[in-house]
Amino acid sequence: MATIEDVAKLAGLSRSTVSRVINHHPYVSEKKKQLVYAAMKQLEYYPNSSAQRLRRQKTDTIAVLVPRLTNPFFPVLIEELDLVAVEHGLQLLICQTQQNEEKELSFLNLLKTKQVDGLIFTAIENDWETIAPYKEWGPIILCNEYKSEATVPIVRLNQVKGSYLGTKHLIESGHTKIAFCGGTESELGIDRKKGFMKAMEEAGLIMSEDWFFPSSYSIDCGKDILKTLFAMKNRPTAVFTGSDEIAAGIIKEAKSLGVSIPDELAVIGFDDQPIAELMEPALTTIQQPVKDMGKKTMEVMVSMLNSDIVNDQDQIYELPIRLVKRQSV
Amino acid sequence: MATIEDVAKLAGLSRSTVSRVINHHPYVSEKKKQLVYAAMKQLEYYPNSSAQRLRRQKTDTIAVLVPRLTNPFFPVLIEELDLVAVEHGLQLLICQTQQNEEKELSFLNLLKTKQVDGLIFTAIENDWETIAPYKEWGPIILCNEYKSEATVPIVRLNQVKGSYLGTKHLIESGHTKIAFCGGTESELGIDRKKGFMKAMEEAGLIMSEDWFFPSSYSIDCGKDILKTLFAMKNRPTAVFTGSDEIAAGIIKEAKSLGVSIPDELAVIGFDDQPIAELMEPALTTIQQPVKDMGKKTMEVMVSMLNSDIVNDQDQIYELPIRLVKRQSV
Repeated sequence: MATIEDVAKLAGLSRSTVSRVINHHPYVSEKKKQLVYAAMKQLEYYPNSSAQRLRRQKTDTIAVLVPRLTNPFFPVLIEELDLVAVEHGLQLLICQTQQNEEKELSFLNLLKTKQVDGLIFTAIENDWETIAPYKEWGPIILCNEYKSEATVPIVRLNQVKGSYLGTKHLIESGHTKIAFCGGTESELGIDRKKGFMKAMEEAGLIMSEDWFFPSSYSIDCGKDILKTLFAMKNRPTAVFTGSDEIAAGIIKEAKSLGVSIPDELAVIGFDDQPIAELMEPALTTIQQPVKDMGKKTMEVMVSMLNSDIVNDQDQIYELPIRLVKRQSV
Repeated sequence: MATIEDVAKLAGLSRSTVSRVINHHPYVSEKKKQLVYAAMKQLEYYPNSSAQRLRRQKTDTIAVLVPRLTNPFFPVLIEELDLVAVEHGLQLLICQTQQNEEKELSFLNLLKTKQVDGLIFTAIENDWETIAPYKEWGPIILCNEYKSEATVPIVRLNQVKGSYLGTKHLIESGHTKIAFCGGTESELGIDRKKGFMKAMEEAGLIMSEDWFFPSSYSIDCGKDILKTLFAMKNRPTAVFTGSDEIAAGIIKEAKSLGVSIPDELAVIGFDDQPIAELMEPALTTIQQPVKDMGKKTMEVMVSMLNSDIVNDQDQIYELPIRLVKRQSV
C-alpha cells in the first residue's frame, strides 16, 4: 500500500508539501497540487480518513438511536433523515437500542468519544438526568419521543391531541365503553393516555382499569388483547390503540374468532402505516407526519452543527397530527 | 476540555506513561495505571477514539448497504445482522443506496478510506467489475442479492427453486395462464424468472410477454398491475409476484374493483413478511429465512475480520427456502 512518502518521491516534492495539498492548505501552487494529485492517482494513494477527521475533529456522522427497525414507523423516519443528511454531506449511523438502557448509554458514548458529531433520539430509555451530561459533547435532538425536562431541541407531535381526536371519534360514533392500548410507557405514551382521558371525561365516561393495556406495541400484542377482551364478561365495544401494528393484530385475531369489525368491536390505529390501508376493514387511524418530522429534525441538526452554540436551545417544534377515517370504526 | 497533559500533571507522571496506559501497553505498573485512571476520571478525560482507532487501524464498524429501509425485508435482515454484530463488539453503519450507482460507490469508499472494517451488500447496483477492486481494502460479503462472477463469500437463497415451487403450486391448483411480476432486474430477479419458466415448461405451458412485469417492487406497483391485467382481453388467472408488497397491492386493488381473490385471480407472494398473514385472504407466499441469512452473514464477516486472509474465499452459503400455503391461491 502506497504511503505519503511514496507520493512525495514520485511527485518530486517534500512530504510536507504533499501533506499540505492533502489537507487543502492555502499557499500551495497549482502546479505542485497537480503533481501531487497525479502521483496519488498513479500510486492509488488514499488519505486515511481517520487521520483527516482527527485533524479537523469532525466525523460528518450523526447517530440515530431507534428502539427497533422492524416497527415500520422507524424506517420511514430514518429514510427521511437520511435523505436530508446526504444533502449536507452527512452520513447516518443507525443504532438499535433494542429498548435497552445499557445499549443506549453505549451509543451515547459515541458522542463522548467523538465517533459522531451529533445524536438523535427517536425513543428514550434512560432518565433525562442520565442523558443530560452528554450534551456538552455535541448536539443532541429528541425526535418523536420526548422528555419535558429535556433542555435540547425537540421535534415532536401533539400526542395529547392525537389520542383526543381518535377517542372523540369513537365517542361520536356512539361508543361509551372504550379500551386503551398505549404504545409505550414513555412520556409520549402518558400524553396519549391524557388525550384519551380528556375525551372520556368531557363525555362523562368512566374507564375500567381492566380495559387498559399499557405496554403493548406489536401485532402479537394486538392478538393477545383481542383474546383477553373477548374473555371478559363486561367488555368494551371499541378500542383505541397506540400503533397500527396493535390494531392490525386485533383485527386479524378478531377474524380468526369470527368477531366482526367494526360491528362487534371498533378499532382505531396510530401512525397511518401502509398496513392501515391494506387491512380489511381498512384502519381508521391517527396520521403522524413522519417524513416532515424527519426533515425538520435533520435541518435543526445541521443548523446546530454549523453554529458554535451547542445545545443551548430547548426549542420545541410541534408538527400537526390528524385523524384519517376509514372502515374500522 | 481536559488534555493528556492535564492527566499527566494531575497523576504526577509523564505524558508518555499516560499514553502507554491509555493504549494498554505492557510493562506499566499497576500503581501507575491506577493513578492515571483516577486522574482521567477526575478530569473527565476521554481518549479520542479516532486517534485510538487510527493507531490500531480498526473502526469496529461494518457498513451494510441496503436499497431502502422501507421494504420490511431489510429491517428484519438488519436487526439480525445487528444482534450478531453487537455480540462481537461491532457496530453497523446502515447505508441506504436508494438504488443509485453513484451512492453505492461513495459507500464503497468507506472501505477504501478505512472508515469501516468490512462491507455487506444486501443489493447490488454496479457491475461486479466496478466493485471487485475494492476487495483489497477489506472483507466484502454479498447477502441476499448476488453476482455469479463475484469472488467474495455469498450468503443467499436458491431463488430458482423458490419461484419454481410457487409456480408449480399455481399449476397444480389448475392454472395455465400465469403472470410474472419480478421484484428486481438483478441476477436474483433473473433466477426467479428461470424457476418460473422451468415450472411452466415442465407443464408444457407458454407465457405471454404481456403478462411479464419486470421492474415492480411496491404496493403501488401491485395496484397498477391489477388494473393492467383486468384491462386485458386475454388475461391470466394467476399471478406470481416477487414480493409480498406487490401481492398486497394486487389484493387491495382487486377488492376496490370487486375482483374476488383467489376465485378470479390467484396470487402468490415472496418473503413471508408480517403483512402476508394479515392480508384478507392471507397470502400464500415463498418464505425466505431472513434471520438465518443475517446470522450466517455476520458470522462469516467476523471470521474474515479475525483472519489475515481477506476476500480470498468465494464460498456460497445457500439457505433453504419453502412454500407457505395460505388462502390467496
